[in-house]
Amino acid sequence: MQPKRDHRSNNMITRIFATHLAEYPPERVPGPTIHEAKKCFLNWLGNAIGAHRHPSVNMMLNVARALNSSPQATVLGTSIKTDLQFAAILNGMSSTMWDFDDTHMETIIHPSAPVFPALVAWGEHTRLSGKKLLQAFVLGFEAEARIGLCLGREGHYERGWHITSTAGTFGAAAAIGKLLSLSPSQMQHAMGIACAQANGLREMFGTYTKPMHVGKAAANGLLAALLAREGLTSAPQPLEGKAGYAYLVSTAPEFRPLKAPWGESWQILRNTYKPFACGIVAHPSIDAAMRLRQRGVTASEIVAITVRVHPLTLVLTGKPEPTDTLEAIFSVQHGVAVGLLDGKAGQREYTTDRVRDADVVALRRKVTAIASQEVAIDQAVLEAALKNGEVIRIAVDKVIGSLANPLMEKALEEKFLDMTAPYLTPERQARIVDFVWRLDQQPSFGEFFRLCEADREA
Amino acid sequence: MQPKRDHRSNNMITRIFATHLAEYPPERVPGPTIHEAKKCFLNWLGNAIGAHRHPSVNMMLNVARALNSSPQATVLGTSIKTDLQFAAILNGMSSTMWDFDDTHMETIIHPSAPVFPALVAWGEHTRLSGKKLLQAFVLGFEAEARIGLCLGREGHYERGWHITSTAGTFGAAAAIGKLLSLSPSQMQHAMGIACAQANGLREMFGTYTKPMHVGKAAANGLLAALLAREGLTSAPQPLEGKAGYAYLVSTAPEFRPLKAPWGESWQILRNTYKPFACGIVAHPSIDAAMRLRQRGVTASEIVAITVRVHPLTLVLTGKPEPTDTLEAIFSVQHGVAVGLLDGKAGQREYTTDRVRDADVVALRRKVTAIASQEVAIDQAVLEAALKNGEVIRIAVDKVIGSLANPLMEKALEEKFLDMTAPYLTPERQARIVDFVWRLDQQPSFGEFFRLCEADREA
Repeated sequence: MQPKRDHRSNNMITRIFATHLAEYPPERVPGPTIHEAKKCFLNWLGNAIGAHRHPSVNMMLNVARALNSSPQATVLGTSIKTDLQFAAILNGMSSTMWDFDDTHMETIIHPSAPVFPALVAWGEHTRLSGKKLLQAFVLGFEAEARIGLCLGREGHYERGWHITSTAGTFGAAAAIGKLLSLSPSQMQHAMGIACAQANGLREMFGTYTKPMHVGKAAANGLLAALLAREGLTSAPQPLEGKAGYAYLVSTAPEFRPLKAPWGESWQILRNTYKPFACGIVAHPSIDAAMRLRQRGVTASEIVAITVRVHPLTLVLTGKPEPTDTLEAIFSVQHGVAVGLLDGKAGQREYTTDRVRDADVVALRRKVTAIASQEVAIDQAVLEAALKNGEVIRIAVDKVIGSLANPLMEKALEEKFLDMTAPYLTPERQARIVDFVWRLDQQPSFGEFFRLCEADREA
Repeated sequence: MQPKRDHRSNNMITRIFATHLAEYPPERVPGPTIHEAKKCFLNWLGNAIGAHRHPSVNMMLNVARALNSSPQATVLGTSIKTDLQFAAILNGMSSTMWDFDDTHMETIIHPSAPVFPALVAWGEHTRLSGKKLLQAFVLGFEAEARIGLCLGREGHYERGWHITSTAGTFGAAAAIGKLLSLSPSQMQHAMGIACAQANGLREMFGTYTKPMHVGKAAANGLLAALLAREGLTSAPQPLEGKAGYAYLVSTAPEFRPLKAPWGESWQILRNTYKPFACGIVAHPSIDAAMRLRQRGVTASEIVAITVRVHPLTLVLTGKPEPTDTLEAIFSVQHGVAVGLLDGKAGQREYTTDRVRDADVVALRRKVTAIASQEVAIDQAVLEAALKNGEVIRIAVDKVIGSLANPLMEKALEEKFLDMTAPYLTPERQARIVDFVWRLDQQPSFGEFFRLCEADREA
């Protein structure tokens, strides 16, 4: 079935969108969005440093070496430099490796992972100020989220496209495009060049191609902006044309978010930060398990746990018997088990050792997840049958980490400390946290990458 | 409407395909396919050298310079070296710039443009022999065409995906994967990593994003193979999975070509070479106009020309009033005009000067193209109404350059000489042609790139 197309009213979409974006004065980006961008940065940075030694990052680094990549920008956590594209790919890979990054819930985009790596590489290379970096991020975020809203969760993401990578390509192009001061026409071409590169498949979840294509989104967006600056032309209607990107990858593109004026509201203020190191749709269930623990219930009392979740939760994270970290990240059953056993669901609860621990396995086998149309994506209803015959029912409505119950600055700091603890001494961690909260006053990144270099062994 | 899915019988497709590919001994590639690969190479090379100074190639080169790309492989026609990825992109861009490259008609893939650039870059870097290059090309071509047959002309290409870029990514990955001697499992991952990068939109036709994404197909395929060698994992069913690439980008994927054994027939033997420097679907009409000229008809006699063509021909090349080279390439009307006026439709007939020439404009305005379901894609029916009242009707069935009426070695040589004349002296051209026909006896490419360097000014 062909989606409905109304080309008469939609024949200037990319032009309008690109013009709004190109003409928005970065210095007019409001204070609350800048503060939110710092929260994004701290959360993103902890992820990037925390996963910088992952084997798949090393594989990409080997390829960068095979291509004799020039030292232009730093791979976070190390003193290694690669060219801007590989730095964007590598930092993009690490920052989304643990699925512990931020989420724009309406689209399920993880917005920082494809945008910051491009910005930070370019920022280091051009000695950008912290303020300009944050302003460009807010605008890149806005572009990325609006493209995501256009492509749609149902018509695009749920169909199989990894929206973080696809929309993220546009976000990175937009952010770098702002730093390059692209004209409306150049920005339009940058969006078109992004259309011809954006990719990323949900089929890759649970494999290392997933972080790879998020990293490539960052590099492809950077390339799109650089080519547009050089004058490379793209189609006038790359998204909304009859065979444009939006119609090819979405069954129901919605162009209103691309036409709406800029500055009235900001998508970054709808960003959320994960408290748990796994797929976000599993979070309400973990929250429920932790509340069960808070009532004094222990694993030894459990006969069975049933958790009713949104159908998509089961599709994405219904893995009852995970055998390693990667599988556990997509296992709501594992999340419930460690939530009750450990009262936490950070990276340590997702190590392969913990995933295979006998107590965890035993409890996990007692957990059954059931899809229910009556449960929203950010909700869960847990029922625990205890050995004494009691049944405890916990309904999570405003899950921790959601917009209604957000992770605050202090919790984000703790998450950063937790993620980077294997590589950074507390003194170093404190200096980085301090640097980030004052990021809008930093004249450049000179000192920053040295600070992020691992100063202890894992 | 969801395409039909039969996952039970289709759950090993990529594995089977990758195993056939990985296990096929390159030295068993038969002689006739090696000879055909040389024809591909000569045709590809003329294109690459002929367009190496195009402004869009220069834009990409500027980006390579901004990224401080290392000198690993040569940009054809120059003494400039970039890293392997940029060399693949740059040579990929130039070799498809004029839409004068080869065509696998069943899929409308231009097979050489994304595969040779990756191979030649890697081949120069690793001092590969000519024979190994040709063998890897035949196998890469086979993989590319089979992926194209799987995605389908109707369900993929006609829907809006640029199949040269999408299938080409797999072709490049396959060819490089053979040179890296990837195991079946690594080859499977390489195909999966290709799935997560392949892109290219028909909406970009007539813009310089089109050659750009063909170039990126070459570089992305190279990256996929290199990452697979490093051990990067991808999904077990990247193409055929429920939300796999084939189902996302095709309304009717056909998996039989991916399951069929290798070595019984070869897709490269179904390759064709364009005699005219424009979109292939316009060729039958140009052939008809040239036959009209052979009957002694001149432009001054014409009242009107009507040409009936396949509907897709009109969609792709129905541009009645082109104003420059790029638009003329997609104008069947322009092709008919120069076919009659010049008896040729090479690059010179597509220069912006020629496109705007008063005689050409006047004749072009007398040409009307009409879509007809009764005309096949490789046919055209031309009717010329003359001032003396005569009507001449020419039906082209076996168009020049088709499999049934192929461009022979001599004609390919002439095409090469014509395309490279602005940059190479006749002596140099002759040495290159000789080199190519003996490519399977060349121990390396050492001399070759020096030979291809422009030795005269355009």
